[in-house]
Formats: sequence, structure tokens, C-alpha cells
Amino acid sequence: MNSTMKPVNVGLLGIGTVGGGTFAVLARNREEITRRAGRPIRIAAVAEVEEGRAEALAGGDVRISNDAFAVATDPEIDIVVELIGGVTVAKDLIMAAIEQGKHVVTANKALIAHHGNEIFAAAQRKGVIVAFEAAVAGGIPIIKMLREGLTANRIEWIAGIINGTTNYILSEMREKGISFEKALVEAQALGYAEADPTFDVEGIDAAHKLTIMSAIAFGIPMQFSKAYIEGISNLAAEDIAYAEELGFRVKLLGITRRAEDGIELRVHPTLIPVRRLIANVDGVTNAVLVKGDAVGHTLHYGRGAGAEPTASAVVADLVDVTRMLTSDPEHRVPHLAFQPDHVADIPILPIEAVRTAYYLRLQVFDRPGVVAEVSRILAEHGISIRAMTQKVPPEGVNTATIILLTRDIIEREMLGAIAEMEALESSAGPVTKIRVEELGN
Amino acid sequence: MNSTMKPVNVGLLGIGTVGGGTFAVLARNREEITRRAGRPIRIAAVAEVEEGRAEALAGGDVRISNDAFAVATDPEIDIVVELIGGVTVAKDLIMAAIEQGKHVVTANKALIAHHGNEIFAAAQRKGVIVAFEAAVAGGIPIIKMLREGLTANRIEWIAGIINGTTNYILSEMREKGISFEKALVEAQALGYAEADPTFDVEGIDAAHKLTIMSAIAFGIPMQFSKAYIEGISNLAAEDIAYAEELGFRVKLLGITRRAEDGIELRVHPTLIPVRRLIANVDGVTNAVLVKGDAVGHTLHYGRGAGAEPTASAVVADLVDVTRMLTSDPEHRVPHLAFQPDHVADIPILPIEAVRTAYYLRLQVFDRPGVVAEVSRILAEHGISIRAMTQKVPPEGVNTATIILLTRDIIEREMLGAIAEMEALESSAGPVTKIRVEELGN
Repeated sequence: MNSTMKPVNVGLLGIGTVGGGTFAVLARNREEITRRAGRPIRIAAVAEVEEGRAEALAGGDVRISNDAFAVATDPEIDIVVELIGGVTVAKDLIMAAIEQGKHVVTANKALIAHHGNEIFAAAQRKGVIVAFEAAVAGGIPIIKMLREGLTANRIEWIAGIINGTTNYILSEMREKGISFEKALVEAQALGYAEADPTFDVEGIDAAHKLTIMSAIAFGIPMQFSKAYIEGISNLAAEDIAYAEELGFRVKLLGITRRAEDGIELRVHPTLIPVRRLIANVDGVTNAVLVKGDAVGHTLHYGRGAGAEPTASAVVADLVDVTRMLTSDPEHRVPHLAFQPDHVADIPILPIEAVRTAYYLRLQVFDRPGVVAEVSRILAEHGISIRAMTQKVPPEGVNTATIILLTRDIIEREMLGAIAEMEALESSAGPVTKIRVEELGN
Repeated sequence: MNSTMKPVNVGLLGIGTVGGGTFAVLARNREEITRRAGRPIRIAAVAEVEEGRAEALAGGDVRISNDAFAVATDPEIDIVVELIGGVTVAKDLIMAAIEQGKHVVTANKALIAHHGNEIFAAAQRKGVIVAFEAAVAGGIPIIKMLREGLTANRIEWIAGIINGTTNYILSEMREKGISFEKALVEAQALGYAEADPTFDVEGIDAAHKLTIMSAIAFGIPMQFSKAYIEGISNLAAEDIAYAEELGFRVKLLGITRRAEDGIELRVHPTLIPVRRLIANVDGVTNAVLVKGDAVGHTLHYGRGAGAEPTASAVVADLVDVTRMLTSDPEHRVPHLAFQPDHVADIPILPIEAVRTAYYLRLQVFDRPGVVAEVSRILAEHGISIRAMTQKVPPEGVNTATIILLTRDIIEREMLGAIAEMEALESSAGPVTKIRVEELGN
């Protein structure tokens, strides 16, 4: 039996939600995981500030320490699992572990998105693996999918619902017709949103994950600082309802696409046709749609967060690393999918250079000639109208709402057109714009 | 540059649809594939009976031969790609290649489902890899997903739409309200069904793929002969319509589940709730839903067949094998996901021992007491009724249609109850039964 084989010793840095899940999964499925990995995987040491909590979770035969550096550099440890989070101490710990020739597994998307290039370069020099499946959409093995499953393909684009909090809020806003603020309070009450929800609702968390997927898909370095990021906190319930009337659903999408002049890297609320499978992914679930030139469209759906879905990714990485522990680095899957000397230098496009369709909501004073003026401005900017509705205003109201769907246009032109429409005398307020993606070809 | 690195030499056996796609993808994405694999992948030789066709596809610098055994055992060839199909010659070729110490990539689901155990044992002895991602749901890297992505999980069940032909036919039957026969003719005209459609419409192709996924998910040997297989050729358009009224959609599912006493392995038409994402997968697309204990539900969707989606899987395998070409076998992912000395001996359950819910359609003579008799029989067999509708018969018709949805019951009891219902004096014909799966927990 494999139980007689030398176990792989893991040092766990931080034992919060995901650490607890990792412990639980490794213990519960010990037998099957050993059968798959060929060797037992054993958590030998845990570093945790709250030692009492760690002891309660880890049981008797695990060394517990409040010195994370001691665990990260412990000679007995083969693989260091970093679950502390943040981009400061976590980075120092990972760099220290790499320096000691240890393999690393991390769930830290912010760290990889911000400092992945530096971390992978260090790992490359020391011949160790840094695995990070858990950093993107926990329950969906999307890193493996992109890096190994779709290697035959020239990837054209990826569009993902990669933040559960915002997807839950958007689902509630649509189903109950409630405001963002109200849905956020609900999400907080249920533990789906944090007390300070900024990272989630402003799209930063999604942008971290998108940055990682983009690098792997296109063979480019991590470039989080160049991502365009727009969250859902300004989204009005009425736009969700109007979108629905037009056959579209509003999702916070992370989109990265190979365009003619560069790579698009953008997170923003997006209208997508209701008939698309991904439009029907509701609640805290994640889904990633990938378009490859050979494979066509492929969708991957699952839990994006939570103790055990994320632990599932951490442990899958542990099994992969266990198998490759003593292998020659040339046999390994490259960190960024492409061999390190072949990472490409393709620019990330600014949002003004992105081409997409738009949903527009205009508030105008209800008088003759308004539609003619709006149509003229759009035409002058080369923007085609795909659909237009003017809503009947409630009695006694002298402003009207115009809803527009446009064809694809470069954002620069759209911003120019919007500025002109807002400057019209008939304008009764700012123009609301939400980007539209067909997610077809 | 990698172009100076020694290329990996591939021998292609058969250059039909998938072989042509493999050529096209390797040529078109040569640069990216090389960047990923670390070495160029070159088709050095092709074995094909129709040499003219092969020459047209392969171009000048590829050796073409009508002797497949010569290519399979050619000393210059590193990896043999078997795309001939069938379970006779293809098997001999693969065994010959393994014997010569060559790695093998195959898209041959029938061969793996029937002879996988023997082939993997031979590969194990010779220390070579037999890769078969393309054998299941071409465009979806589901083998990699199950074997590597979900290694942390105790897999509970898999339910898949894994035959595009039948899914297309079922989609057409539902959307247009047409019969199986009519939809089949349409599918044949469009090239989605073969002239002899038996393998697809009778569920055999799906059972091949299910057998492979089941072995990998549960760490058991391939046991195709124990699969329960029921196709869609007896499915009536009216049952699809009645299911829809009840909020269900009919799909041909391959289901494998870890039950208390063994493993379920079954392909049959299945009612699934319309609100499930997988119920909305239409046309020739495939989708596989996996339930793992840590990860929860995860769905993977994509093209299941076609030249380039299948080639995408073949080439992904080629990249994987290229990376591992000179590695120690212990560093490799085991063929059946679990280490070969740890394959389990869990029995496959006969269909009579499977527990599931049912949709029943009864034709009865329209007279008092019928519903009471039917209800009594079901109760005596411990079968709970979840929903029941009696349809108003058209004028002048003296038989009535009763539609029933039951709760879970062991199939043995259901068969007993159906026999009794059919023996009733009020029975006007055989009872139609379709299994129902919630695909929830």
C-alpha cells in the first residue's frame, strides 16, 4: 500500500476558511487522493497567528507555529501552501520558500496578478513550481483548462462571470427588481459580501482573476495595472429591467480578447443575450466561456469560492506538484502556459480603443426633434442603431426615457457621441451606457 | 528559438475528418503550439489507404504509406496517433506501437471502452503513455478535468450529454414537435447523423464515452459490457411535449453514480428540470455535469465532435505527451486517474437495482375506477406519486392518457408495478416509462 510510501510534507501558511477546507478535504478523501497522487499528502506544519484555532482544526500530529517564515523555510517541508492573502507578507513568504527550493501552491489572486511575473521568474531560476489553480474560480479548474486542455488552440477570447458576490447581487436585483444598495445589504447578511465590499463590487477581484487568465491564454506577462475596471455599484435596477425587455441580461463580465492591435482586458457590467447559457448562470456561481479557434466555444461552470471548492483546487495542485516533485523542470507545464522564453510582447489596449456594442439610456425633455438630434449625433460618429425605444413618461413628467442598442463601435467614438448628446439642450441628465457583448463569434 | 530544437515526430494512422483537422490545427497554430510544448510537433509520416487524399492533405515533406504497421513501428516516430477507428486493426496497431516503446494518442472511444484495460496494462509494462482525451466529448477536455482537475474530490456522479447526434435530434423533436423518424432524416441530411445511425441513436456511442468517464471517476476498470444502454429511437414526440408541460426536458444522458452497493452505469432518455443549465444545451453540443464532494456541481460544455474540436483534443494530448516524453513514468498522470495498483473492485449495478424517479404515460380505457387501480398498484410497490394529470381525450376517443411523475424507487419495483398496470382490464396499451433525474444533490 501507498501508506508505506514516504508522504509529501506540506506546510500550510494560514488556516482560515480555505485552509480549514483543505484540511477537511485531505482528511476525508485521504484514501482516494493517495491512490491518485501515488503518495500520501500530509500537512506536517501549520503557521497561524491564532494558534488555538489552528490546533482545533489541525488535530494532534501537526506542528503549529506562529512563525510563518519558519514554516515556509522548514527543511522538512516539500510544498508550501500560502493561504494568508494580501500582497506584502504573502509575497515575502513565497519568495522565501522558493529561495529554499520549495514548491508553492497559492490561492492568492491579488498576489499573482500583481507580482506573478517576478514570482514565476524566481521559481524558474530555482527550478520549482508555483501552482495557482485556486486563484481563479475555485471550483472550476480553468487554469488547467487554459494551460493544458486547450493547448492546440489560438485562443480568441475569454468572457467570465468570475466574482460570485456581484453575480449574486445582480441576480437578486433582476429577480426582485431591487436596487444595488438593497441587494448588497442582503448579500452581506448572507455572508456573500464582505463588510467592506469594495474589492468585489468594484470589479477589482474579477480583474485580478481576468489578468491571470489573460496572461495564460495569450502568452503575455501579468499586466493588472492596464486592466479597465468598472464595478456594479452604479448600476440601476431600471437598466436591468430594460435590458431584460430587449432580451438581454446584465452580468459583470471579465473579458479578454485578442483584437487587431492588442489585447483587451476589461471588467464591466455587460448586456448578454438571454439565450446564451452563460446569461443563465445565477447566484454565487462562476462560469467562464472560452473561444478557441479549433475548439469553438467551451463553457465551464462551478462554484467560484467557498471553503471546499477552493480547497478542491488547492489539493488538485498539491496532487499535480506531488507527481512532478522530482521531475526535470522541462517536463512541467510552464507557469504561464507558454515556455518562459516565449512570452509575447503584445500591448494591452486602453478602453478607448475597444470595439463593442452599447446599451444607452437617455433622459431627455419631452419635445419635438429630440430623436432626430440623437440620431444625427450617432450617425456623425459612425454609430449604427440596432434598436430604439422611447418609453411613455408617467403622467405629469416632462422628461422621456430613450433606450438605444447600437452596433459595434470603437469606445472613443461612443464617448464623443455621449458628450455631444449630454450637451444637447434637450438633455435632462447624463447618458447611461452599458457595453453589450453577443458572445457569439 | 524552439524551431532549432529537435521536433517530436508524429506518425498519423488514418487521415479522415479528425486527421485532416489535426493537420490543419498543427499547421495553423504551429508557432503557439511550439511555444507551449517547448518543442515543435511535426507529423512525419501518415498511413492511409487512400494515398492520393493523404498527399493532398499532408503536403510535400510528410512520408505517406499505405502500410499502417510500418508507420506504427517506424523507429523515427516518437508518438503514434491512431485515428482509424474500430476495435480490431486499430487495437493491433496500438499494441504494436506500444511494443516498440512508442507513446500513443487515440480518439477511439470504442477501443478504449472495450479494450482499455488491456491496452493500459501493456502501456504500463512498456512505460509509455496512451492518451485519449479525444475519445470523449472532443471539444471538452473532460478527461483532463476528471483525472487532474478534480483529484481532490470523491466524485459522486457524472451526467452527460455526450452524443451530439441524439442531442440534435431531441432538440429538433422538441422545437418542431416532430417525430424521431423525421428528425433523424433531417439530421442525416445535415451530416449530423450517419446513414446507419445505430451507434448514435441507440446510445452505444454515449455508452462508450460514459464507460471511460466512469472508470476514471471511480478508479474502476473499463466495464462497457455491464452498461445499461437505451437509445432514443422509441421516444415519442408527445412525451417530449408532456415533459415540457411538467417543466422537464428530455435528454439522452449518460449517468454514472456511486450508489450504496455499487456503481451505476447507464445511458437512457432522461427527464431533467428545465431550470438546470444542462437542460438548455441544445443541438450537436455536448455537456458534462460532474458532482464532486468538495467542488459541488461543475458543468463543462462544448462541441463534442467535428474535425477541429476533436483535433483540439488530439493536439492537447500531443503537447502533454511531448512534455513528458522523456520523463520517469512515476511523474505521469495514471491512465485511469488512479495509480494502476489501486484500481478498485466495485461492482457495476444492474439497471434493476438502480434507484431513480420516473415519468409514466398510461393509455387506459376511459371508465370509473382507473385512477384508483393505478394508485393502488403504485402504493403496493412503495412508489410515491409526485404529480398526476389525466388528459382530456379528443372527442370520440374512448381511451384516456394519464401522465405520472413518481418519486425515487428502485427499478425492480417499478417494473413490477408496470407489469401489473399493463395487466389491468382498463389498460389500453403498454406503459411508457422515462427515467427522471433532478441532477441536484
